[in-house]
Amino acid sequence: MPSVSEAPFIANRDRTLTMPYRSPVSEFRFLLDKVVGFPAVQETDRYAEATDEIVSAVLSEASRMCDEKLSPLQREGDLHPAVLENGRMRTSPGFAEGYRAVAEGGWVAIAADPEQGGMGLPMAVTTAVNEMMAGACLSLQLNPLMTQGQIDALENHASEELRALYLPKLISGEWSGTMNLTEPQAGSDVGALTTKAEPNGDGSYAITGQKIYISWGDNDFTENVCHLVLARLPDAVPGTKGISLFIVPKLIPDENGTPGVANSLKVVGVEHKMGLHGSPTCVMSYEGATGWLVGEPNDGMRAMFTMMNNARLGVGGQGIGAAEGAYQHALAYAMERKQGKSPEGTIVGHADVRRMLATMKAEILAARSIALSCGVAIDMGRATGEAEWTARAAFLTPIAKAFGTDTGCAVSDLGVQVHGGMGYIEETGAAQFFRDVRVTAIYEGTNGIQAMDMVGRKLADGGEAACRLLDEIEASAEAARGALPDLASAVWEAAESLRETTEWLAEQPAPARFGGAVAYLRAFARVLGGHFHLRAALAEPEGAHARLGRFYIESLLPEHSGLLAQVRAGSDPLMAISPDDLAA
Amino acid sequence: MPSVSEAPFIANRDRTLTMPYRSPVSEFRFLLDKVVGFPAVQETDRYAEATDEIVSAVLSEASRMCDEKLSPLQREGDLHPAVLENGRMRTSPGFAEGYRAVAEGGWVAIAADPEQGGMGLPMAVTTAVNEMMAGACLSLQLNPLMTQGQIDALENHASEELRALYLPKLISGEWSGTMNLTEPQAGSDVGALTTKAEPNGDGSYAITGQKIYISWGDNDFTENVCHLVLARLPDAVPGTKGISLFIVPKLIPDENGTPGVANSLKVVGVEHKMGLHGSPTCVMSYEGATGWLVGEPNDGMRAMFTMMNNARLGVGGQGIGAAEGAYQHALAYAMERKQGKSPEGTIVGHADVRRMLATMKAEILAARSIALSCGVAIDMGRATGEAEWTARAAFLTPIAKAFGTDTGCAVSDLGVQVHGGMGYIEETGAAQFFRDVRVTAIYEGTNGIQAMDMVGRKLADGGEAACRLLDEIEASAEAARGALPDLASAVWEAAESLRETTEWLAEQPAPARFGGAVAYLRAFARVLGGHFHLRAALAEPEGAHARLGRFYIESLLPEHSGLLAQVRAGSDPLMAISPDDLAA
Repeated sequence: MPSVSEAPFIANRDRTLTMPYRSPVSEFRFLLDKVVGFPAVQETDRYAEATDEIVSAVLSEASRMCDEKLSPLQREGDLHPAVLENGRMRTSPGFAEGYRAVAEGGWVAIAADPEQGGMGLPMAVTTAVNEMMAGACLSLQLNPLMTQGQIDALENHASEELRALYLPKLISGEWSGTMNLTEPQAGSDVGALTTKAEPNGDGSYAITGQKIYISWGDNDFTENVCHLVLARLPDAVPGTKGISLFIVPKLIPDENGTPGVANSLKVVGVEHKMGLHGSPTCVMSYEGATGWLVGEPNDGMRAMFTMMNNARLGVGGQGIGAAEGAYQHALAYAMERKQGKSPEGTIVGHADVRRMLATMKAEILAARSIALSCGVAIDMGRATGEAEWTARAAFLTPIAKAFGTDTGCAVSDLGVQVHGGMGYIEETGAAQFFRDVRVTAIYEGTNGIQAMDMVGRKLADGGEAACRLLDEIEASAEAARGALPDLASAVWEAAESLRETTEWLAEQPAPARFGGAVAYLRAFARVLGGHFHLRAALAEPEGAHARLGRFYIESLLPEHSGLLAQVRAGSDPLMAISPDDLAA
Repeated sequence: MPSVSEAPFIANRDRTLTMPYRSPVSEFRFLLDKVVGFPAVQETDRYAEATDEIVSAVLSEASRMCDEKLSPLQREGDLHPAVLENGRMRTSPGFAEGYRAVAEGGWVAIAADPEQGGMGLPMAVTTAVNEMMAGACLSLQLNPLMTQGQIDALENHASEELRALYLPKLISGEWSGTMNLTEPQAGSDVGALTTKAEPNGDGSYAITGQKIYISWGDNDFTENVCHLVLARLPDAVPGTKGISLFIVPKLIPDENGTPGVANSLKVVGVEHKMGLHGSPTCVMSYEGATGWLVGEPNDGMRAMFTMMNNARLGVGGQGIGAAEGAYQHALAYAMERKQGKSPEGTIVGHADVRRMLATMKAEILAARSIALSCGVAIDMGRATGEAEWTARAAFLTPIAKAFGTDTGCAVSDLGVQVHGGMGYIEETGAAQFFRDVRVTAIYEGTNGIQAMDMVGRKLADGGEAACRLLDEIEASAEAARGALPDLASAVWEAAESLRETTEWLAEQPAPARFGGAVAYLRAFARVLGGHFHLRAALAEPEGAHARLGRFYIESLLPEHSGLLAQVRAGSDPLMAISPDDLAA
């Protein structure tokens, strides 16, 4: 991006430049209580302490922090990106204070193990809190989100010693964490990575290599930065089976956890991105840096997947948070933008503006319910140990990530459009949501990768997890037939078409599934959205949720049929289009 | 947009930063000859000189200029935006030379009246040339596109004297033209404008007011800049019926057309936009500036619509040009990005990457064919004077604009995605297409306005123009049943559903149509796309177009059914969602 003109903001003299974000606490309460089945989590022993009162207190405390401390940083991060100066990271104005508010409030990792300083709250609640932080300031929120992933990986795979040394500092937010997977020649193709790890003979390893796209690779507000790095041991086989995971701190801590000497690693550059300027995306260079093995040798991918799975749900929440911010921003504009011909006197009176706003709100409800229900499934899996819940969580994770971030992109795009010409002017703030959120459809596994995970690994059970979910949707629709017959019937029929396509798809060889993978994921999200909207409508049949649910089910849900047709077309017609055809 | 870090481009060391654009001349020839019915234009007396040889020469000459002179400016404009310095506009490096190549080649207005220096070429050919210029450098191309609109308005509405004075200079490119509609309080609601025009007593008027969003409001490479300005005469009634059109030159020409004294107008600022940085978007202040009436008093909207109609087709072409640029860019990346697991050794071997590229290419063919066929309809209307052709052109214009620019946005979005993480890094160039093209869905009437025009004015004939087009599509599909039975049948059925919905829609009162307007426009574009893909496939049943057509018809066309469901839902459920519901 260029250093553009110093021209003042001209077009829009009668409007405050940016809108403060307001965390949608009551909507979270409604969805948790009435739509996504959170009461079942509260009934488990593990989460018995997550009573309604506690959850309400947590949400309202988090919302205050988001609205007051983080929201003002959103625009600052865009205007004053993090920069590398003489090898030191200088973050955006106010980010240090904002981060302090996150850490001091205990918001870095509220789901983490209470024995290490976490609150042990359910993932469903974490999902809500993460989304609020993302809606308030996406670029800063990415920092604790990465730390959460690292905490997960360490909790599940690190030795007792490493856990004792690192977890309390990460959970308290004194230290932050990063994930180092990508190398210049190894993006989605992780197996191609070449970073080396050589034993030092004292139990530690010397890590050498270069990593790119490292979100928050450094900062000027945490005492230490801990990198989880994928690398190869000297005798490792090629491909993903020869990858191990290491923790590599910026400053090497002594046994009491006091950071000491600087490790042999550095940030060599910060990328120049379309958005999310407040979050420094770093190129990291490891030059014999000291690291410690996390998990077993050559078993790094498994640990990395633990980290990525929760990060994927978290990134889905980033998309939804950005969507909520863009929606609030557009709604405020539409309610105040005068338009003589409209009955309301503002553009919100226009059917097409109403359509855009209703679409934004309806899509947010769908994506948010999917993410929260994924959190519920994770919680139920942890609390009950039942494989069905674990499978449910695994099945919902790619949908939560891809549909959440696609919704972020689509809703922020509509937010620009609601603003008309003003949407294209940077000072209005609508464009920033659109630029910032775009990366969420790419990182933590592109949305195409999510879809391939879904039709590949997640249908490897023959479609069992999928069909179990569809059983629930259909049963729920059956139960709604009395109160909302037309909507219930539309959801039931959509679920039934999806079931037929799922059964067909599960029988295809993997390559035949991939061509329609993105369409299948989206169709599933559409039907889940119909299911959740129906539940929301049932909960208040004469209320706003019922009106929104009718719009979703009548106007947005029908998209699924075109998507299922694309799935059924398979991969053959697609792969018949050769590279030469594409270049013709 | 901030002044971001000076960090060098790091992530991608093994790749040239930007891809040169190559004008798709042979594709234009194929579509004109085999798909959109251009031979009928060539058979008219008016366009008898537009022989195959002439058209080929024009396209290849234009393509050389685009590829060699304009394409290198694309990135320059982004990095070095036009700036206002001490009241003077300084345009991006190289833009003056680029503009000179456009003007000297005669490319500003190739459809203009030969008696005033134009070439009198068909709009179908103009559409192709405009698209190529846009694909090569969108921000510079917007300059001659605005001039074309002004030429149209003057040719059709200005006095003999004004035409003789202005047209030769505009057509030669010595002067450029702008359109001044929007004011801070009057965007889509043009009737709310307040700029005043008071008679000077010598046949001229004193224009006073402020206009915003004026594309190319000034430059440093044309001898004069002529503004078409909407304003109110002293006795004008409120609303759109009291608006008149004036031509207001930056420098007042003497009777020989030599620019003389500076007029009382100035650029007071340049907007700070998400993209299209090479094109200065100006706030103009008119302070008793001398202007001359174009057309009759209080009849300004009619003249403005002439100008806007062709500009709308032109803006549609901008979207398609940007899509072509983004596609070429993504394809080149996909063909060289190594990926061990893929059969081709690069990511183009992945089904999902193939899907994205095929979608991009298929959407471009659909949008381009719609734009070219709109050009053909304009040409046939002009050549034959038949009302049916004029109605066809009027019907296709909003589709060409909205679907062309939506395709620009969607294809450039896929272009970012194909690049993965690299797509989010500015230096790669993929993000620029995405940022630049976004405004095309907003200006010249937002795409929502296009859709309302379509279901409002363009269905006011009871759906006659729409159904005549559907008759042709169905007849064409019938004729294809022998060669491509399944594809022909899919297109026929889609057209028939669209007909049913069209007939239903035409019977609804206008407000009931507006809720589904955008969905209806898109469904119509989908079916037109199916029609044109079928024709392209028929033209080479064993070739690349047939494989691409099968993908479009099987995988993308089915979207129409969900869209038609949204149309049928009407506006009531939407308008039942109150502003309070939206804010809940």
